[in-house]
Amino acid sequence: MAEKKHYTIAVLGGTGNEGPGLAIRWAKAGHNVIIGSRKEEKAQRVAAELNEKLGEDLIKGLANLEAAQVCDVAVLTVPYSAQNALLATLRDTLQGKLLINVTVALKPPKVARVYIPPEGSAAEQAQAILGPAVPVVAAFQNVGAHHLEDIGHPVDCDVLICGDDKEAKAIAAELAQDIGTRGIDAGPLINAKTIESLTSVLIGINIRYKIPGAGIRITGLPEV
Amino acid sequence: MAEKKHYTIAVLGGTGNEGPGLAIRWAKAGHNVIIGSRKEEKAQRVAAELNEKLGEDLIKGLANLEAAQVCDVAVLTVPYSAQNALLATLRDTLQGKLLINVTVALKPPKVARVYIPPEGSAAEQAQAILGPAVPVVAAFQNVGAHHLEDIGHPVDCDVLICGDDKEAKAIAAELAQDIGTRGIDAGPLINAKTIESLTSVLIGINIRYKIPGAGIRITGLPEV
Repeated sequence: MAEKKHYTIAVLGGTGNEGPGLAIRWAKAGHNVIIGSRKEEKAQRVAAELNEKLGEDLIKGLANLEAAQVCDVAVLTVPYSAQNALLATLRDTLQGKLLINVTVALKPPKVARVYIPPEGSAAEQAQAILGPAVPVVAAFQNVGAHHLEDIGHPVDCDVLICGDDKEAKAIAAELAQDIGTRGIDAGPLINAKTIESLTSVLIGINIRYKIPGAGIRITGLPEV
Repeated sequence: MAEKKHYTIAVLGGTGNEGPGLAIRWAKAGHNVIIGSRKEEKAQRVAAELNEKLGEDLIKGLANLEAAQVCDVAVLTVPYSAQNALLATLRDTLQGKLLINVTVALKPPKVARVYIPPEGSAAEQAQAILGPAVPVVAAFQNVGAHHLEDIGHPVDCDVLICGDDKEAKAIAAELAQDIGTRGIDAGPLINAKTIESLTSVLIGINIRYKIPGAGIRITGLPEV
C-alpha cells in the first residue's frame, strides 16, 4: 500500500466561513495546516481557537503571502469579491504549486439566485490569473461549514472536483477523503460553473427547508 | 386527506430517450398519459410498446399539437436543438396550461462539458417563448432514462424543481413523487441553468465511472 502523503496546506482567507472547518479536519488527518489571512494576527487568533478545539497545537497562522510561500497546496476560501485582487498578489508565489479553489461566484445580496459571471466561474478566473503552471481545481464549495466544524460527526455529502489536471484532481480527492467525504471527478474546469452555482441552489434549500447545511450526493456509483 | 389528483399529461417529443420512462411511470401512477411526437404514427408505435410493457392500454399516441391540446400538463422532452421551433408552434395551444421542461441546453458533440447558452437555460428560453400565462418549471433532467424504464425498481435520486410559480412547482413535486422520487424546490427559474448543466456533469460521471445512470440526492434534509 502506498504511504499516505502529508501536505503543507495553506488555507488562504481561512478565517472566514469555510476555512476553519477544512483546516481543522485536515490537521486532524495529519496534514501541516496554515491559516492565511490579510493580517497575521487574525490568522494566529483563529489558528489558536482551532488548536484549542483540537486539544493540540497543530495549526499555524500567517499572512496570506507567507502562507502561500511555505505551502505545497493552496486552498482559496475568500469571498468572490476579494478573489482576483488576492490572486494577483500571490501569482508569482504560487507558480508550480496547486490551487484548490473553494470560492464561489456569488452575487450578494440574492445569493440563493444562481449567478454565472461572464468569465464562467471563480475557478476559471483563478486559472486565467495564475496561468498554466498552477493547476486550479474547483472543489469543496458544497460542504456546509456547519458540518465541517462539527468534528465529532461525519460529513454527509460528496465533494465534486473539477479541473484540467489529473494529478491535481487526485490530490483534491485525497483531501476530500481526509475530511470524511467522497471526492468525485466532475470533469474539466469549465464544469466549475455548475459546481459553484449549486452553492446558490443549496443556500436556497437551506432557507426554504429550514436546515443548516444541505449537501449533494451522487447516486448510482458503486460503494467504495 | 386531500384526494390525489390525476392529470392528463402530454409528454411532447416523448418518443426519445427520457419521455418513455416518464410516461410509463406516470401511467402506472394513474395519470392519463399521451405520448406526443412529430408524427402521430411514431407516437402511437411508442405508446403501443409501452402499453405492452404495462400489460394494459393506458398510454395514447398523438401528434405533438393534438397532445398539447388535450393535456392539463405538458412535459417537454425534445432535444435542445428542436425546442424553440416546437414551442413556437404550440404557444397558442399551451396558454393557461403548465409546461414542465425536461429539455437540457446541451451542446453536442461534447455533451459532458457544461454549456450555458446566452439565454441561460432551455427552460428560461421556453418561458420567454410561451409568455407569462404558461408557468414553466424545469425538472426531471437528472433522472436517468435507464432507471425510469426499469419499472420494477425504485429510482434512486431526487428531482430538483426550479420555477417562478409555486402552484406549478407543487404539481411537478407531485409528479416527482409519482415516479418514486423526492421533488425538491430548487428555487426560481433562473436557477434552471445549474440543474440543466448538472446533466453534463452526470453524463461525464457515467463515462468516467462506467455506470449507466448517475443521479443526485440532496443531503441534510429530514426524511419525509
